[in-house]
Amino acid sequence: MKAFGVFLFLLCLDWCAAHAEQPQLRVNGQRIVRRLEALSEYGKNPQGGVSRVAYTEADRAGRQYVMGLMRDAGLEVSIDTAGNLVGNRTGSHAALKPIVIGSHIDSVPEGGNYDGDVGSLGAIEVAHILNERRVPMRHPLQVIIFENEEGVMLGSTAIARGVDAARLNSISQSGKIVSDGIKFLGGDPNRLTESKRQPGSIAAYIELHIEQGAVLEQQHVQIGVVEGIVGILDCEVTVEGVANHAGTTPMNQRHDALLAAARFVEKLNQLVISIPGRQVGTVGWIKAQPGAYNVVPGKVTLGMELRDLDARKIKGLFEQIRTEADEIGRMNGTNFHFDSDDLSAPALTDKHLQTLIGQSAKGLGLSTRLMPSGAGHDAQEMANLGPIGMIFIPSVGGISHSPKEFSRPGDIENGANVLLESVLGLDRAPAAN
Amino acid sequence: MKAFGVFLFLLCLDWCAAHAEQPQLRVNGQRIVRRLEALSEYGKNPQGGVSRVAYTEADRAGRQYVMGLMRDAGLEVSIDTAGNLVGNRTGSHAALKPIVIGSHIDSVPEGGNYDGDVGSLGAIEVAHILNERRVPMRHPLQVIIFENEEGVMLGSTAIARGVDAARLNSISQSGKIVSDGIKFLGGDPNRLTESKRQPGSIAAYIELHIEQGAVLEQQHVQIGVVEGIVGILDCEVTVEGVANHAGTTPMNQRHDALLAAARFVEKLNQLVISIPGRQVGTVGWIKAQPGAYNVVPGKVTLGMELRDLDARKIKGLFEQIRTEADEIGRMNGTNFHFDSDDLSAPALTDKHLQTLIGQSAKGLGLSTRLMPSGAGHDAQEMANLGPIGMIFIPSVGGISHSPKEFSRPGDIENGANVLLESVLGLDRAPAAN
Repeated sequence: MKAFGVFLFLLCLDWCAAHAEQPQLRVNGQRIVRRLEALSEYGKNPQGGVSRVAYTEADRAGRQYVMGLMRDAGLEVSIDTAGNLVGNRTGSHAALKPIVIGSHIDSVPEGGNYDGDVGSLGAIEVAHILNERRVPMRHPLQVIIFENEEGVMLGSTAIARGVDAARLNSISQSGKIVSDGIKFLGGDPNRLTESKRQPGSIAAYIELHIEQGAVLEQQHVQIGVVEGIVGILDCEVTVEGVANHAGTTPMNQRHDALLAAARFVEKLNQLVISIPGRQVGTVGWIKAQPGAYNVVPGKVTLGMELRDLDARKIKGLFEQIRTEADEIGRMNGTNFHFDSDDLSAPALTDKHLQTLIGQSAKGLGLSTRLMPSGAGHDAQEMANLGPIGMIFIPSVGGISHSPKEFSRPGDIENGANVLLESVLGLDRAPAAN
Repeated sequence: MKAFGVFLFLLCLDWCAAHAEQPQLRVNGQRIVRRLEALSEYGKNPQGGVSRVAYTEADRAGRQYVMGLMRDAGLEVSIDTAGNLVGNRTGSHAALKPIVIGSHIDSVPEGGNYDGDVGSLGAIEVAHILNERRVPMRHPLQVIIFENEEGVMLGSTAIARGVDAARLNSISQSGKIVSDGIKFLGGDPNRLTESKRQPGSIAAYIELHIEQGAVLEQQHVQIGVVEGIVGILDCEVTVEGVANHAGTTPMNQRHDALLAAARFVEKLNQLVISIPGRQVGTVGWIKAQPGAYNVVPGKVTLGMELRDLDARKIKGLFEQIRTEADEIGRMNGTNFHFDSDDLSAPALTDKHLQTLIGQSAKGLGLSTRLMPSGAGHDAQEMANLGPIGMIFIPSVGGISHSPKEFSRPGDIENGANVLLESVLGLDRAPAAN
């Protein structure tokens, strides 16, 4: 009878542990915010924000700081040959593939303190709290801080697909050749293939990130469940006309490349908004030559891009744009040339992970919405290895890549808790095997 | 009876001199072309054409050569305090105001061998042939080779209106401060006002020039009788929008400064061609900021200009353009700012001189047409001092300010003969007093 009483007591303890403590498992939001502040010192700009461009001294120093946080979270940390920081936590079922979480800490020049940093420190916090509370997982958990995400996603590409010689020999934004930059961060470009993983080698990759747009804030939604990362077709367009004296050339004898380019910019916009959906199209830069106030421009180059989750839609739009460009050229005797039609394929997130992230958020009482990611992320490379999921939190004013980039502490904590719940949910679900 | 026979003989000689020799008076076209070739050596570019930018060593050396030609033509040559070369030929009626002819020999960087040079060597040839054939004139004849015409018309401004301190202290295209450049050419910037002349102090100014456009060539016309030099309104336009991420900013939330600028370029063109006339409007340069392929442009600056013989038409067009720009700005929440509405006034040529030039050409069997000058010339400054006339000859392909600039030897000879006939006609006409 006494033994039964003890048994009941223990059963009660176990029940309590399972049903009372588990719901209490939450990230330490203040710790993330404190560490965001500490990380912001590495590459801090006098006028605010950071310039922690990949392969610079600020980048390396910031990574040293983050490596310490990873160890503090109980992770077994190493630098892979591509220069990525990899932190491992053992799972109880050694045969299971790892659940991978992470992001990046490099920034654009004069960038902000949230893009990449929130996801990196959020992932480390998830590992930290699991370690602190001694919460076991069946799967191994891996935190990766990818190197050189901005612009090129180099670290994640090395892991997911490998990096070719041309990219290794290219000049990075730091001014260093990429291979020298990898060495600078502690990688080994001669053994780069050792970092490359096989498709199917991960249980999942989940990344927390700031939205970098204003949709969540405007719609008062707390968590964005990312449907996928858009594909991007970007292309340099050249318009060839005839340069001529702006005073002596009658209007009807001009082959004005800038006039044709202006019609192109307007037409691209018209075509992109003419069909339903969330596709975007942009002309971000333009150059008219010779570029004198008194010369009719003879040549214009400009950069255009199209983005959508649906590759066919992008390609269809691009074909329409090319057709219209030819028509515009015919109007004033100019010629359009498009340097490429290369499309970085859209990367769709896993439906199961979308559901899991949505349920995790709802379980925490947070509002959600499905949305595309208009920006590129390491997750799109990791999609080559297994199912991916992404969690967005609001960006105040939709501002990113700017010292004014800001996400509220409460939203950061929410996002990290959704990441934690999603990891634990995935760990329990047989589908993650 | 014998005396009467001698008298008749002398009368006949006189008649012959007046009616036979006079029509034979023609410029030496080969001499002009040979001298154009010789002048092309000063500042010659390896790839063709010249860079004889004002105040450079090439400019000074070229002027030394030309000064020799002026002396060779029997002119009394001096350098005025503004650095202009002034060659004088005495007239039989000392009280008459001088008939002034001339042009410039400085070039744009990588310019051609005809802009300015044809008119300069044509004017010297007129003086040369008059001297060679000992043809007397009632008026003094003055040949002026103006300094630093390209862009700023400095030498002719000094003569016609005076040059203010700001312009004297500005940096010229040579890199030299203008006042240093004037000194370099043998002028004296401290005594600049001595070069300034009074309105009404010249009988006329007539300038021969290449068209720099393609109208004459296309219409198979040999001589252009210039109606006037267009006024120019040039203005820097700034479009302020909001820079944002090209992937994460939905189309309907953009304030795309480049899209607004593109609509502006198209609208300016539409407005300029919407009314009859020969007015021209150009956007010659454009800059989008930040100018990255993946950022919606937040700011665009561009240079626009309008030209016409009618200042009211230019001003009216500019007002319409501003109104439309505001409308374009309202369409996507951008703002247009125009930095100035300064207009360099059109300079009309003298009706009497138009007729004289036209008749001179027709007397030589040449076809003519009235036309505006879309480019600026020293003549527009000289218009402040007295009646002006301009003679255009065809530019092959309408090309100017380029090593490919070319005018045919026959056209150059025609132009110089029209100049000669116009000078002689003016000398005979009482209206020139």
